[in-house]
Amino acid sequence: MYYCSMYFFDSKIRVRYGETDQMSFVYYGVYAQYYEVGRVELLRSLGVTYKELEKIGYALPVVNLNIKYKKPAFYDDELTIRTTIKELPSAKIIFHYETLNAKNELLNTGEVVLVFMNKKTGKPCFAPEIVMSKLKEKL
Amino acid sequence: MYYCSMYFFDSKIRVRYGETDQMSFVYYGVYAQYYEVGRVELLRSLGVTYKELEKIGYALPVVNLNIKYKKPAFYDDELTIRTTIKELPSAKIIFHYETLNAKNELLNTGEVVLVFMNKKTGKPCFAPEIVMSKLKEKL
Amino acid sequence: MYYCSMYFFDSKIRVRYGETDQMSFVYYGVYAQYYEVGRVELLRSLGVTYKELEKIGYALPVVNLNIKYKKPAFYDDELTIRTTIKELPSAKIIFHYETLNAKNELLNTGEVVLVFMNKKTGKPCFAPEIVMSKLKEKL
Amino acid sequence: MYYCSMYFFDSKIRVRYGETDQMSFVYYGVYAQYYEVGRVELLRSLGVTYKELEKIGYALPVVNLNIKYKKPAFYDDELTIRTTIKELPSAKIIFHYETLNAKNELLNTGEVVLVFMNKKTGKPCFAPEIVMSKLKEKL
Repeated sequence: MYYCSMYFFDSKIRVRYGETDQMSFVYYGVYAQYYEVGRVELLRSLGVTYKELEKIGYALPVVNLNIKYKKPAFYDDELTIRTTIKELPSAKIIFHYETLNAKNELLNTGEVVLVFMNKKTGKPCFAPEIVMSKLKEKL
Repeated sequence: MYYCSMYFFDSKIRVRYGETDQMSFVYYGVYAQYYEVGRVELLRSLGVTYKELEKIGYALPVVNLNIKYKKPAFYDDELTIRTTIKELPSAKIIFHYETLNAKNELLNTGEVVLVFMNKKTGKPCFAPEIVMSKLKEKL
Repeated sequence: MYYCSMYFFDSKIRVRYGETDQMSFVYYGVYAQYYEVGRVELLRSLGVTYKELEKIGYALPVVNLNIKYKKPAFYDDELTIRTTIKELPSAKIIFHYETLNAKNELLNTGEVVLVFMNKKTGKPCFAPEIVMSKLKEKL
Repeated sequence: MYYCSMYFFDSKIRVRYGETDQMSFVYYGVYAQYYEVGRVELLRSLGVTYKELEKIGYALPVVNLNIKYKKPAFYDDELTIRTTIKELPSAKIIFHYETLNAKNELLNTGEVVLVFMNKKTGKPCFAPEIVMSKLKEKL
């Protein structure tokens, strides 16, 4: 039997003027920030704050970023950053992304992989218990 | 016989304070800007300015961004953005990237795919003659 | 008799990771973006969108920015950008700012002056009727 | 007799695409970064790196930013950030700015005030000897 579960969270972001470029599109690099908001808010929806993870000694550097751009976003658009976790983290955690505009058009899809790192040693480590237990309830 | 040619260009970028984050690393989204500088300077080294391409009616939206992060860059580091073209563009153009620090450590590798677009029609189109001819001399 | 009126609007902004620097403070230049959000949302609260102003032929370049920084903001802080208009615009419009954190501490104060410009001619012009009438109701 | 001395340094900055906005101007908040480059390079020209100042225990938070915008800068412009120190620092240091384009047009003028802070105590302190002695040679 194939069993598939996932957990997703929708964050709303209003495009700022300074995030557009002279093509009138949201600059392609800005989505890295939007995706960051997406995963931070997904974690918060689980009762985990990224800030707290740093306080208890973890850092989460990004090791992979991939974005496929389909349509542009424009100034003042209200975007939905749909962030999805499809599997339990191990030493790494994978976030999948879809950016949608108010007409529900899919603007881009992406994936960000982060690793858990012990801030003191600078070494990769396993995901903290708080993240694992919260996600186990959902996945 | 396998024949391989490519054209690359090295751009130097000094990390700005505002480009770091509280992990003291260059923020992962900033490389999208560095990569943009890399391809703009590669084109300039061929005698083509991106600005001129826009003037003669082209836009080059990014359709794919991929970055693999290996090591962080830090404030005030002098980075080398090595940008490489491995094949002649068609309706799209692919730039390959390597970011190196002053110790010649490889910090990240990446790839950006852009499409040529006719600004008036908003439709994809073939790479302009000026880009093709300059690259044919090199590849 | 001295009569003083003003109109203000509070916008909430959550600090993003990429907006911090290695001092762990929100980078000093980021407030320009926060202030932009503040005035855009103030105008929206009046029923005027900046996007619409651009559509009907206006641009609003900034001619003066002043910020006095008192305390830093940190990652994940929920900030209040209090934006105030104290007088009816003419060819220029002045926004006054206060940034407060969740403990209601005053982090910085600022002022941004913009001019109304006719996008076609590139010349300064008087504030559009829609802005004047909405503000007259409030001031 | 009134005696006036000052020390200035010119930094060159090429405008990046992502620094423009949909008005096709360099976004007004970007100059905070340009000004940062200006003062860092001025200090480097004196043999002082900001990075080193942080290493020996200082932080330099900005307490005041003022910019008067006269003309816009555009994509790919090569700008000169002329940074000037007119007086010896005490607990604070004042940098004066002029941004010029390649036609030598004055685009904006500004002023940034920073304070020297002891990173351990978080308290303001006097400018370090290394900065004072280098500037005394020049002013």
